[in-house]
Amino acid sequence: MPVNLQAPAANSLLPIKGVLLGTAEAHIKKPDRKDLLVMHLSAQATVAGVFTQNRFCAAPVIVAREHLAAGKGVRALVVNTGNANAGTGEQGLAAARATCAEVANLLDCEAEQVLPFSTGVIMEALPLAKLVAGLPGCMADLREDNWFNAAHAIMTTDIVAKAVSKQIMLDGVKVTVTGIAKGSGMIHPNMATMLGYIATDAAVAHAQLQKMVAHASDVSFNCITVDGDTSTNDALMLIATGTSDAPAITDFHGAGFAQLQTAITEVATLLAQAIVRDGEGATKFITVKVEGGKNEAECKKIGYAIARSPLVKTAFFASDPNLGRILAAIGYAGVDDLDVAALKLYLDEVLVAEHGGRAASYREEDGQRVMQQSDITIRVVLDRGNAAATLWTCDFSYDYVKINASYRS
Amino acid sequence: MPVNLQAPAANSLLPIKGVLLGTAEAHIKKPDRKDLLVMHLSAQATVAGVFTQNRFCAAPVIVAREHLAAGKGVRALVVNTGNANAGTGEQGLAAARATCAEVANLLDCEAEQVLPFSTGVIMEALPLAKLVAGLPGCMADLREDNWFNAAHAIMTTDIVAKAVSKQIMLDGVKVTVTGIAKGSGMIHPNMATMLGYIATDAAVAHAQLQKMVAHASDVSFNCITVDGDTSTNDALMLIATGTSDAPAITDFHGAGFAQLQTAITEVATLLAQAIVRDGEGATKFITVKVEGGKNEAECKKIGYAIARSPLVKTAFFASDPNLGRILAAIGYAGVDDLDVAALKLYLDEVLVAEHGGRAASYREEDGQRVMQQSDITIRVVLDRGNAAATLWTCDFSYDYVKINASYRS
Repeated sequence: MPVNLQAPAANSLLPIKGVLLGTAEAHIKKPDRKDLLVMHLSAQATVAGVFTQNRFCAAPVIVAREHLAAGKGVRALVVNTGNANAGTGEQGLAAARATCAEVANLLDCEAEQVLPFSTGVIMEALPLAKLVAGLPGCMADLREDNWFNAAHAIMTTDIVAKAVSKQIMLDGVKVTVTGIAKGSGMIHPNMATMLGYIATDAAVAHAQLQKMVAHASDVSFNCITVDGDTSTNDALMLIATGTSDAPAITDFHGAGFAQLQTAITEVATLLAQAIVRDGEGATKFITVKVEGGKNEAECKKIGYAIARSPLVKTAFFASDPNLGRILAAIGYAGVDDLDVAALKLYLDEVLVAEHGGRAASYREEDGQRVMQQSDITIRVVLDRGNAAATLWTCDFSYDYVKINASYRS
Repeated sequence: MPVNLQAPAANSLLPIKGVLLGTAEAHIKKPDRKDLLVMHLSAQATVAGVFTQNRFCAAPVIVAREHLAAGKGVRALVVNTGNANAGTGEQGLAAARATCAEVANLLDCEAEQVLPFSTGVIMEALPLAKLVAGLPGCMADLREDNWFNAAHAIMTTDIVAKAVSKQIMLDGVKVTVTGIAKGSGMIHPNMATMLGYIATDAAVAHAQLQKMVAHASDVSFNCITVDGDTSTNDALMLIATGTSDAPAITDFHGAGFAQLQTAITEVATLLAQAIVRDGEGATKFITVKVEGGKNEAECKKIGYAIARSPLVKTAFFASDPNLGRILAAIGYAGVDDLDVAALKLYLDEVLVAEHGGRAASYREEDGQRVMQQSDITIRVVLDRGNAAATLWTCDFSYDYVKINASYRS
């Protein structure tokens, strides 16, 4: 079950003027569930995104990148679940392009103004006919107040929908940010998560929007791991409709850029954490903080060694303070000149290890008490510089194996 | 249960003249099991070894390296299970040194002529008094024909003991190689495995012996992974007693060097594969071959991405040919200029993927048939060079989680 993760209330999600959303049941893999989403954007909207670095990136990722690069503006996004359209070669590319053409036809725009996204099983052909047959249902359902259904339509093995809204004042004008995401397994994003969509009614020029999405993903979706597997389909898209009355953001130095970037980063971080809390089989939500490093890269290296270790993750599942496994992970992280005698390891506020071994003050019952919690922070203080990094992960349970030994069937 | 792994027959293990072995029950962690081993070497024996690259390397690893570097020759090795003496700081180093001093006292040699090894739980103090109290029992038990008991004494979560003997003719003289190893979890060796000891009665000079052990570990223990966790205590030791009548090996170019290196590598490979077959919770033994790479490093990168992926490993546990997960792992392995359309993926002899997607000839029932087997080969042909690498791994089952969620208790 998801760890301390509330399903979003339908009325907590604020519409963004200029973004219409419509969902449908296209029966792509399973009956009786919404599995197709169309987002229709107003003509003045700007869109920026980051995509997976996986070399086997999916056909829709290739096509979405091409269409963004064409620079004709984006009028629609189309998302299906149940099939990733990845590892599908030329046929997969043709299917992604055909999807865009069909959406463009229905919305009276160009195919290059449509971005396609897919998530689900890899190396199976996209059932294009079913997808196309579902599109009119999406069109008939298009409305601004539809984020709640959209968040559900993009789920795969997710148990809880991930969605959040936030409002800030820009120059005295209220601006709204709403985001949705999906993901539960194959989560070790490299540039973005499985799928995330964040929209704001602020007006933001493309260069500023791209910087915001890159920064937001870098400290949110790029800081989580469930199983260390980087997806073929990761994408995080940021949409600015410019429908609010707040002044347009067209440079990197104004207060507006910083304020909106902070709000967008907060939304992205909540969505990224929600993915970990709903990680496949998760029973614990674990924050890994590495501080006092020479640079951020080595902090992330050590953080990910801990966050990916099956031995650490199974110990947390068992609530067993078998914390030597964390030392082992720090040791093999690949920081070659690391002085293990100089570092300190904390579990929440409890000092566990220093001087290369167990701290004299450490008592097993203190470790045990923290391990019983469902939210736990592992903190490593390296004492060799001022850099830091924070990652989020979950534990490794029987249910992870169960879910992934039966995901296709 | 171990995958197609036979326990060694006691009479299949050939003694090596010049190596006496003695075991005892020292009650270090559990009652009623042999957990202490002493190997006593003849005075003319040469010894070489490779050790873990983990920065949090265990106290005995540090002391063994020091004692080898002292160059006084090695007269004894002492191995305990039940406690790794890792993450134990200064106290741990003192305990490892005290162990050597006590063995030296009993065998009338110098402490620097003794190498210590430990395996078991991390960050708990070594129960030195129990260990020392067990040593006289080992001494009373010392004999050449004792490899079978030695293989059992070094086990932790291993289900089956790992041991093998091999004989070759060197210049018309019969030479014997016998090796034992242990390991089942925290297996992703970086220079050597958890613990491995190989002895031969050939005479080999130290430089030649060091090259043999480095080569043997590089293509055996350094090519396996169970869970991606590199241990703090990995060590592979190679002993040459020089008690056979075969001519001494003192250069790198003679036929003797090549023949003996091949025999030692074969023994090391069988032991390394035995560790994977007995990997925690393993139900499948998986060989990962990556061919046609630009260099060995990129072949290993791709091989390990596949071999470490929890999603690939759970699919194999389920015997589910959900093989798109292998493509995803190839894609995120970190080979930045990889052309995914040029590579081919085979499961045993079945062509699964080419041209960036599912092969036209691939039928699900063929994949299903191979997945039902307990020994399976994944072969990736990159078509960009002549380098290759072969790795071995196992699947990821409920029992892996069960074993590691309860290992300490």
